[in-house]
Amino acid sequence: MPRAVREQQMMDAAVQTFGRLGYRAASMDEIAELAGVSKPLVYLYLNSKEELFTACIRREGAALVAAVRDGVEDVRAEEPADRQLWAGLTAFFAHTAEHPDGWSVLHHQARTHGEPFAGEVARTRAELTAFVTDLIGAAGREAHPTPEFGDRDVTGLAQALVGAAESLAGWANETPGVSAKEAAATLMNFAWAGLGNLMAGKRWSPAR
Amino acid sequence: MPRAVREQQMMDAAVQTFGRLGYRAASMDEIAELAGVSKPLVYLYLNSKEELFTACIRREGAALVAAVRDGVEDVRAEEPADRQLWAGLTAFFAHTAEHPDGWSVLHHQARTHGEPFAGEVARTRAELTAFVTDLIGAAGREAHPTPEFGDRDVTGLAQALVGAAESLAGWANETPGVSAKEAAATLMNFAWAGLGNLMAGKRWSPAR
Repeated sequence: MPRAVREQQMMDAAVQTFGRLGYRAASMDEIAELAGVSKPLVYLYLNSKEELFTACIRREGAALVAAVRDGVEDVRAEEPADRQLWAGLTAFFAHTAEHPDGWSVLHHQARTHGEPFAGEVARTRAELTAFVTDLIGAAGREAHPTPEFGDRDVTGLAQALVGAAESLAGWANETPGVSAKEAAATLMNFAWAGLGNLMAGKRWSPAR
Repeated sequence: MPRAVREQQMMDAAVQTFGRLGYRAASMDEIAELAGVSKPLVYLYLNSKEELFTACIRREGAALVAAVRDGVEDVRAEEPADRQLWAGLTAFFAHTAEHPDGWSVLHHQARTHGEPFAGEVARTRAELTAFVTDLIGAAGREAHPTPEFGDRDVTGLAQALVGAAESLAGWANETPGVSAKEAAATLMNFAWAGLGNLMAGKRWSPAR
């Protein structure tokens, strides 16, 4: 078996173990057993528990960012801003629902054991926030060639959107029967139609 | 000096030290010195570093929840839902700006060192989310005697709002010159007017 394939198997086992048990409680023995390899081989390929955990955070962070980018790029060229956001959010919640252990590594475990892990996950979050900032900024400029709101407003809105999405992903993964589409629709209602419109009975809808 | 006063001084020193240095790096020596008392006295009053940290999380969590409740209650009886939300958010961001060390204890430190601390801060978060859920639910029922959206929708919106507020509080505290009012206005624009309205140049405004 090629090294790259075996390494991916070890990391799959590591993400599952770290995501479910946490960084401290997870043992290299368990990870090796779940991956179907010997413990010395895990150390040979991935050096230490700390490096293995860091590699997991990087892989899961990159996969999440890629999923959101791909989701938005599917509609990018021709669709209005709300459709782009809907595509990005649907991709985000689909990814976090399909990879609950990866999301747990990023959102809980990586933040709960200090550096260097918190810094790794902060980079992923900054990348997602920058992407959302660009999206909102572009939509704003499209709607108003003379800017209606400044860079700091846009950054604040992106921070709010990313925080809302993180919170909803945790809630969706813990609440039986909440689908990725439902979580994305909740956030579109909140973020796009706005609570004000929602209270007046005007829902945002993906159907046009 | 009465015990209760001295205990509050120790906890003030502890919140400042834990908030800035983190749970592990903070030492009982530093906390005692900052409080102007001997280390044995800190242990006599608050037992252990773990119990002291737990007491800090409880105190800061209760203070934050009380600040938000008081903010909303100031307008509760006579004002419409968006004014209530504005009052609650302004109180939230004013409190997190005035108590950056307390916010750091709740939002970062308490989550980054496993149990029992994560459970303590989860209870504060659940209390805030339940409060916001009630607020949104009541506003929805007021606007529509026949419910337009169900309990789960309301819970999802509350989760989104709390997540957005947490994210913005961190951003506001890290970004020079962002005031509590500005952070609250950003979230009102996002949550009430909605991005859709914002893109169309319709801002929510506290002035009527």
